[in-house]
Amino acid sequence: MPTAPQTLDGWFVLHDFRKIDWHGLRQLTASDREAMAGQLESLLAEYEQGNRDKSGTFGVFAIAGNKADLLFLHMRPTVAQLEQAKTRLNQSAMGDYLLPAYSYVSVVELGGYLAKPNVDVDTDPYLQSRLKPALPQGRQICFYPMSKRRLGGDNWYMLPEGHRADLMRSHGAIGRKYADTVKQIVTGSMGLDDWEWGVTLFSDDMLQFKKIVYEMRFDETSARFAEFGPFYVGHRIDMAGLRAYFSSLPDRAFNH
Amino acid sequence: MPTAPQTLDGWFVLHDFRKIDWHGLRQLTASDREAMAGQLESLLAEYEQGNRDKSGTFGVFAIAGNKADLLFLHMRPTVAQLEQAKTRLNQSAMGDYLLPAYSYVSVVELGGYLAKPNVDVDTDPYLQSRLKPALPQGRQICFYPMSKRRLGGDNWYMLPEGHRADLMRSHGAIGRKYADTVKQIVTGSMGLDDWEWGVTLFSDDMLQFKKIVYEMRFDETSARFAEFGPFYVGHRIDMAGLRAYFSSLPDRAFNH
Amino acid sequence: MPTAPQTLDGWFVLHDFRKIDWHGLRQLTASDREAMAGQLESLLAEYEQGNRDKSGTFGVFAIAGNKADLLFLHMRPTVAQLEQAKTRLNQSAMGDYLLPAYSYVSVVELGGYLAKPNVDVDTDPYLQSRLKPALPQGRQICFYPMSKRRLGGDNWYMLPEGHRADLMRSHGAIGRKYADTVKQIVTGSMGLDDWEWGVTLFSDDMLQFKKIVYEMRFDETSARFAEFGPFYVGHRIDMAGLRAYFSSLPDRAFNH
Amino acid sequence: MPTAPQTLDGWFVLHDFRKIDWHGLRQLTASDREAMAGQLESLLAEYEQGNRDKSGTFGVFAIAGNKADLLFLHMRPTVAQLEQAKTRLNQSAMGDYLLPAYSYVSVVELGGYLAKPNVDVDTDPYLQSRLKPALPQGRQICFYPMSKRRLGGDNWYMLPEGHRADLMRSHGAIGRKYADTVKQIVTGSMGLDDWEWGVTLFSDDMLQFKKIVYEMRFDETSARFAEFGPFYVGHRIDMAGLRAYFSSLPDRAFNH
Amino acid sequence: MPTAPQTLDGWFVLHDFRKIDWHGLRQLTASDREAMAGQLESLLAEYEQGNRDKSGTFGVFAIAGNKADLLFLHMRPTVAQLEQAKTRLNQSAMGDYLLPAYSYVSVVELGGYLAKPNVDVDTDPYLQSRLKPALPQGRQICFYPMSKRRLGGDNWYMLPEGHRADLMRSHGAIGRKYADTVKQIVTGSMGLDDWEWGVTLFSDDMLQFKKIVYEMRFDETSARFAEFGPFYVGHRIDMAGLRAYFSSLPDRAFNH
Repeated sequence: MPTAPQTLDGWFVLHDFRKIDWHGLRQLTASDREAMAGQLESLLAEYEQGNRDKSGTFGVFAIAGNKADLLFLHMRPTVAQLEQAKTRLNQSAMGDYLLPAYSYVSVVELGGYLAKPNVDVDTDPYLQSRLKPALPQGRQICFYPMSKRRLGGDNWYMLPEGHRADLMRSHGAIGRKYADTVKQIVTGSMGLDDWEWGVTLFSDDMLQFKKIVYEMRFDETSARFAEFGPFYVGHRIDMAGLRAYFSSLPDRAFNH
Repeated sequence: MPTAPQTLDGWFVLHDFRKIDWHGLRQLTASDREAMAGQLESLLAEYEQGNRDKSGTFGVFAIAGNKADLLFLHMRPTVAQLEQAKTRLNQSAMGDYLLPAYSYVSVVELGGYLAKPNVDVDTDPYLQSRLKPALPQGRQICFYPMSKRRLGGDNWYMLPEGHRADLMRSHGAIGRKYADTVKQIVTGSMGLDDWEWGVTLFSDDMLQFKKIVYEMRFDETSARFAEFGPFYVGHRIDMAGLRAYFSSLPDRAFNH
Repeated sequence: MPTAPQTLDGWFVLHDFRKIDWHGLRQLTASDREAMAGQLESLLAEYEQGNRDKSGTFGVFAIAGNKADLLFLHMRPTVAQLEQAKTRLNQSAMGDYLLPAYSYVSVVELGGYLAKPNVDVDTDPYLQSRLKPALPQGRQICFYPMSKRRLGGDNWYMLPEGHRADLMRSHGAIGRKYADTVKQIVTGSMGLDDWEWGVTLFSDDMLQFKKIVYEMRFDETSARFAEFGPFYVGHRIDMAGLRAYFSSLPDRAFNH
Repeated sequence: MPTAPQTLDGWFVLHDFRKIDWHGLRQLTASDREAMAGQLESLLAEYEQGNRDKSGTFGVFAIAGNKADLLFLHMRPTVAQLEQAKTRLNQSAMGDYLLPAYSYVSVVELGGYLAKPNVDVDTDPYLQSRLKPALPQGRQICFYPMSKRRLGGDNWYMLPEGHRADLMRSHGAIGRKYADTVKQIVTGSMGLDDWEWGVTLFSDDMLQFKKIVYEMRFDETSARFAEFGPFYVGHRIDMAGLRAYFSSLPDRAFNH
Repeated sequence: MPTAPQTLDGWFVLHDFRKIDWHGLRQLTASDREAMAGQLESLLAEYEQGNRDKSGTFGVFAIAGNKADLLFLHMRPTVAQLEQAKTRLNQSAMGDYLLPAYSYVSVVELGGYLAKPNVDVDTDPYLQSRLKPALPQGRQICFYPMSKRRLGGDNWYMLPEGHRADLMRSHGAIGRKYADTVKQIVTGSMGLDDWEWGVTLFSDDMLQFKKIVYEMRFDETSARFAEFGPFYVGHRIDMAGLRAYFSSLPDRAFNH
């Protein structure tokens, strides 16, 4: 029986995708909308406080395409904190207009393939920065969940351990070619959500997401063993951008 | 023809997942919402009474992510009682704001692999406590449905009986490694719902759900033969917590 | 080329699953709801008349879980009559609150495997009672659609006729073990709905549904060749029960 | 490389399935509903005019089960005309209550297997009647989309041309056995909609749909190579029937 | 390990499919609808400006069938511009009645198979016209996403590079047979959306879409290795056509 690789696990992560109910927002007066956007900003400022005091990580992203409009990305020490972050958003007045579109619960995971002897995980600065990561610099984001295939002759979990390690090494080599342009946070989600891992990529150049995913697809690890869920891309917006986002709606002009 | 293993079957189980219509709740006055929450509490108190008089088991859980907000978990001697539990919740005033998100009907099942001679199932205290289980201590919960695969060369139901027993023994050994940290209730659902089993895990440490599912995935029983449905995770909340949950909504501020 | 087995076909069948819009019903006054429930009862009484004059078969079932709340089960000589039964329900005042959840159109089918010489199908009392069946006694119900697999080496329709007959004989033997506790109505739906057959089981003991489906799954006919759709379980309710069902909703207490 | 068979292509076809919003209709007064039904009739009369002047084909069908209530079946020389037929229906007052349930865009297709030398397709009366078909006599209808399988060893498009022709000949022989009772219009939809073909069957005897589909399923062409989409069955209704359909709704009795 | 082919990448592309809420539009007065349509025209005129100053490409298409009513097709240098195009449409008054139906994010891609030495991509007029394409002349449109298969023995990404190149050459030869009647824009979407490529076809003859897709399906590249998403077809409409589209709705006649 192959043995499961050891992993190091850090903060729990919630990708909370929402669609905006612009139709509903338009029924409100501009001043009500501004008040709501102000309340939202106060709430998000609390979440952002974690970025500064290292108690968590938070960012907002505008998503392209119709599958979602906004992504609220949270990392926290416990899943209960993630549940509270979702619930507080839902309970806020603006929450009525942020319709759930998709979500993903996972935990920051470092593969056992990287483990080294004589390192104290709980204090090693490098590992801690990987397990409780700040948001990378790149303003473009890409998220997708994935699983390793278990299908007939292409069953990742039935491969001998050495074979898996070889494949992962070759796979990692491609990732390292992009180390300067694409930052990657891998999160594990077995037992937590519907796929086995979430992959979140950051870059200043959206095209790099296509290039790295394309190049990896020809690698045996992806070619034979990867199954992919939905892909979401977008770009980070700050609080001022979010305020502009909601305030650009003209006051209500047409009534029912 | 392989023969079906014998099972012992206990209480029927309903996992009743709901999404909260916060938008609708916000249209109500705070006092109306409180009255409704109070009625809900009275209803749930009736369900909880089963925990004390051993006529059933009941618990409420706050679910992470967008797939659901609350899980009402019921165990009862008959499916008709589970149907009534659902219908009474729907008929309650708060029920209007607890939108169905997912549900699962199953029955507590002990594998025939565990059967022992000279034991009277109907009176044996250990078996009775397994067949009509109280909620385990752990406040974190994980639920997922699953089936055994029947696909080409990977067909669980075509394996010789001895081979299946060997695989289950090895699979069980992994479970026992986690016996101290993860409590598991396996429920059968063939003929009752869309997958073959439901698995409900309890722990005080959410990370253990990932660890046990991950380790088992490398076991041949899962690697070759398991197909998984959606995963839901959350944490238990008591009646006081539920009251706080609904009362934290500010009074209506913005009108349509 | 294998030849298709002969079948005997009887009444057409509609499984009409609905979810109840309790939120909408609560907006009405209790007296309006009572009037609507009374109209519904009159309509269903017409359908039930078929049970007495042998022009059709009709029953109502309360369904467990969130996938549906009620099942209206109709058998009639023509599909047009089934369409009318659905449309009349939709056109009734209560119909507004009986949201379509799932449906299945099929026809009572007796396998050619059972055919005997020198029997006049149109007059033989036994065959007629099988082709135009009354509702079995058991108050518990289980419904699921299924198809025979056509996948690589597991292709039912490419098996030699004799092999198929052997498999069906063995499969039928399991069914006969349960003859005293589970009554089964098999309906064919090729060319009529999305799966190849519907299976409707009746029993006084819900656990028997799990046992028969479980035992059959280890039979090669199911293990290698069966693909299953969604499963619905519930229990029969009579007109008095249905009236109680709708009248248990308290008068409207909270307004929007 | 196998070469693609030649096809003859005729009118484009839209199967436009709708669900009726009876709840919405009931909010209107009977006289408003009658006025709307009258407008609908005028619109459909325009579509029906094509049946007489041979500029198109049109029919309305009442569908059994919950997947849809009505089918508007259009054949026209261009897809733009089909788009306009849909849009005009949506823009009609009754269109608000005819919710889209499913649709299929395809084109009447005669297999190259049937091509004969020395026939001018554009003037040959038989071919023209097949390419621009009137609605067959049978009042019962069955529609389903399908594709030919491309899966491992069962890949239709990798078969040698002669093998495909042999299979289609045998498949066609089954169809001809039903020529007197079932009329079939095959429409191609590669590049137009989600499956490769649409099959529309007409008969006066609904049971024949089950018999022909069942018999064909044991034919290698279907058994190994067919993948099926959803099935819809119903019966044709004329304008008087449609008027009765909408007018049978009682005037509004219960208010919100 | 096969290496990934080089690609040239141009403008990012958003296919933004919408369904029209005619029911909502009908609740407005004709003058309000006209004012909204006028605002929409002004917004789209801004998008169309890109067609003239070469800063982007934009077109509107009326879609056949029920899956969508309109397609807004955008090409722009960045995904952020595509996100803004979507958001501005949603924030417009007409946006409330343009319900998201489907969308696709991708980037214009020229296969490395076509690369030639001694060409400066950034200035070569031919390549630039392919990477930042204007809308082709043909008024008929067809869009579908697709992926290359990775399944058992049919795994595109495990083929040796030479074999892939041979297959693509043969595949391209079919495309060139249609060069006069069908213009094709291939866009890559790995890392950007749920399939690997989008294919957008333009022609003056809708039937050519069926013919090219049909002929290609018998080519090994498609037969063994292509997996297809949904297909959408329609025709281009100009601003005058769009105005007519929305103004053809009669003033509101029936009230709730």
